[in-house]
Amino acid sequence: MTSVEVPYSIASALPSLTVLDITNEVRRELAGSGRESGIAYVSPLDDVAVVRVQERESGFFCDLEDLLTRLVAQEEPERERLLCMLLGPRGEQIPFSRGELCLGRWQRSLLVDFRPPDEPRWNLTLLG
Amino acid sequence: MTSVEVPYSIASALPSLTVLDITNEVRRELAGSGRESGIAYVSPLDDVAVVRVQERESGFFCDLEDLLTRLVAQEEPERERLLCMLLGPRGEQIPFSRGELCLGRWQRSLLVDFRPPDEPRWNLTLLG
Amino acid sequence: MTSVEVPYSIASALPSLTVLDITNEVRRELAGSGRESGIAYVSPLDDVAVVRVQERESGFFCDLEDLLTRLVAQEEPERERLLCMLLGPRGEQIPFSRGELCLGRWQRSLLVDFRPPDEPRWNLTLLG
Repeated sequence: MTSVEVPYSIASALPSLTVLDITNEVRRELAGSGRESGIAYVSPLDDVAVVRVQERESGFFCDLEDLLTRLVAQEEPERERLLCMLLGPRGEQIPFSRGELCLGRWQRSLLVDFRPPDEPRWNLTLLG
Repeated sequence: MTSVEVPYSIASALPSLTVLDITNEVRRELAGSGRESGIAYVSPLDDVAVVRVQERESGFFCDLEDLLTRLVAQEEPERERLLCMLLGPRGEQIPFSRGELCLGRWQRSLLVDFRPPDEPRWNLTLLG
Repeated sequence: MTSVEVPYSIASALPSLTVLDITNEVRRELAGSGRESGIAYVSPLDDVAVVRVQERESGFFCDLEDLLTRLVAQEEPERERLLCMLLGPRGEQIPFSRGELCLGRWQRSLLVDFRPPDEPRWNLTLLG
């Protein structure tokens, strides 16, 4: 298991949504592990964040912020935690095979934070 | 790890929601693996799909399509990807014990696709 | 793999939402396993329940019930199953290291049930 701090690679920085692209970091850790196949389990260490696999396209995150604001208004108490409950489990599991993450051509592993993180941190556990 | 194409077993084919029942395929792969206990990690290879454990009941998927249309209108740009973000991580993990998936009597492993897939594909990784 | 019945530790008992705190039980199982690092995969055995990591704060669950009622009205058919689909995969995965769950200071492992369970049950699988 490895716990690392994220070098900032900002995919989107919106008022209520910060998205960091951590794909390269996950790939580097996987390569360094020498493992061939299994599951890379990536989870946030921040309280109000999730990790998701998605395309990295900044317009999309604006649309996502709009949708989430429609569902849970910005001024609603506990908004960030309600969003986390709505979006589901905190982490994402990415299968890997022959030492490579099984991701679509445009898919990236993204850390989605509902509060701009001072020090974004995530956990990577490789199994298999 | 095994990556297989899905033989079509359509649980529901709605205008914006295709649901394939892949339980038998997951069971067959598990039986063939000779593994006793652990986690079967099932994830879609399509970009705008999720795998979920649910009962297979066609009326339910109509209700689900109605709900999702209420939350994200059919004409909204990037609708399929917004739905994926809303519904959470792409895959589902199913514990297995004594070589059998731990599923409730009516529960099935379903591939839920927001775009009718030409060639639905999923990934099964068995750990444990 | 271990399947255990939950001793009742009720975090919240609302009309349409029962929340049980199973953190101590997961910790005890983990300690008993002697495992050092990996993933604790916790999933509900009830049909209309999810396991999530969240802070245990009763006011929050009232806000959550309000949100879910706004999204899926109480009288809607199949409400519980629609909520499960909306909230995502059934289980949550918690990394552990040096025999300890990697949870934030206030985070707990919660079994969230949309129907008051007669006999709440969950499955714990430790991998790694």
